[in-house]
Amino acid sequence: MLHLHHLENSRSFRIIWLLEELNADYQLTCYERNKAYRAPDSLKKVHPIGSAPMLEVDDRVLLESGFIIEYLIKHYDKEKQFKPDDSNEAAWEAYTFWLHFAEASLMPLLVMRLVFTKVVSQSPMLVKPISKKIQGQVEKNMIGNGLDKMLNMMEQHLSKNHWFAGSEFSAADIQMHLAVVGANAGTGLNKSKYANILTWLQRCEERDAFKRAEEKGGRLNF
Amino acid sequence: MLHLHHLENSRSFRIIWLLEELNADYQLTCYERNKAYRAPDSLKKVHPIGSAPMLEVDDRVLLESGFIIEYLIKHYDKEKQFKPDDSNEAAWEAYTFWLHFAEASLMPLLVMRLVFTKVVSQSPMLVKPISKKIQGQVEKNMIGNGLDKMLNMMEQHLSKNHWFAGSEFSAADIQMHLAVVGANAGTGLNKSKYANILTWLQRCEERDAFKRAEEKGGRLNF
Repeated sequence: MLHLHHLENSRSFRIIWLLEELNADYQLTCYERNKAYRAPDSLKKVHPIGSAPMLEVDDRVLLESGFIIEYLIKHYDKEKQFKPDDSNEAAWEAYTFWLHFAEASLMPLLVMRLVFTKVVSQSPMLVKPISKKIQGQVEKNMIGNGLDKMLNMMEQHLSKNHWFAGSEFSAADIQMHLAVVGANAGTGLNKSKYANILTWLQRCEERDAFKRAEEKGGRLNF
Repeated sequence: MLHLHHLENSRSFRIIWLLEELNADYQLTCYERNKAYRAPDSLKKVHPIGSAPMLEVDDRVLLESGFIIEYLIKHYDKEKQFKPDDSNEAAWEAYTFWLHFAEASLMPLLVMRLVFTKVVSQSPMLVKPISKKIQGQVEKNMIGNGLDKMLNMMEQHLSKNHWFAGSEFSAADIQMHLAVVGANAGTGLNKSKYANILTWLQRCEERDAFKRAEEKGGRLNF
């Protein structure tokens, strides 16, 4: 039996979406963020690491988006719909690359941006000009430039491919989606520069399983 | 033909080590960091993303530690020595989990710590007390606690397993090693609390392929 512990507006949305794509039977428990906008302590009772996603499988708790996706694909994707076969080399490579890239390269920059936004908003008034200046320098030297390059690489890939793994939708799109929603937060991605990314985003969100996931887990809103 | 572009003291060390474990034929080009301790512009000529590792395979450039590892395992690990077989469920799960965890969970916290250390060291004298205070708050609220939990989980796993995937050395150890070296930087990990992690670290570094990788790519020193 699968039991997903879902924290609102978090990475566990991906797992609801994949479970819906797989038409899997699962139990869902939803958790609200606390006042500090963090995971509530109740999630620590499921696993001390305390962060979403957590997927209970029998008596074990699985962590880590990338791993949970690979686990579900291995055991529940009986018709091999959501991961390209090993023998389709180009699609296998694209799938594997983007599955890692989303959390290893793209998300860390977005999280760092979020942390600095938080540092500024929580600074006392007298300190705010300084923390804003620090934020500006980090954005300039360590976030913005790297993020632009990543987005350009994604845009280029999606200008030639309908989905991240190529012609077919796959779990790599699920893994990438949340990161792209993060990159599109705030003022949003430039509509002409990243037209293919934004069209792909829409294409993801038109899927029936995605809509069911939103009904069950709530809309992502960073 | 494989051609690895290696940036000193960076994630590409992993790929040298794996190539040595695989006894693969490869060309190695080493790059020194510039004065700002970043990747030199010459690396951008190989691929605009400009970060290590980059593995040239024929006319393509592969990026992303996790993906490059999976690629090399798929094509060069003919005797299936460095990744557990799909049929060995426990080992497959451990391998897959730690392969993702290293870059998706552990490294981002370590990189964030590094960024704040840099922010403090580059602050003008008058600003330093404030940037130090900000650093302290981020360390307390967003880094330290999460890192401790991750290290505890790793320590617990290694108290029951010789290697990250279980009884056998695998590429998951290579992926985790660099992150553990990062966590052990500065004052170092607590020797009694993390005894199993430190013993595992030593065990990694005693391997012949590791020693050859150090000779070719230089010692990691964060």
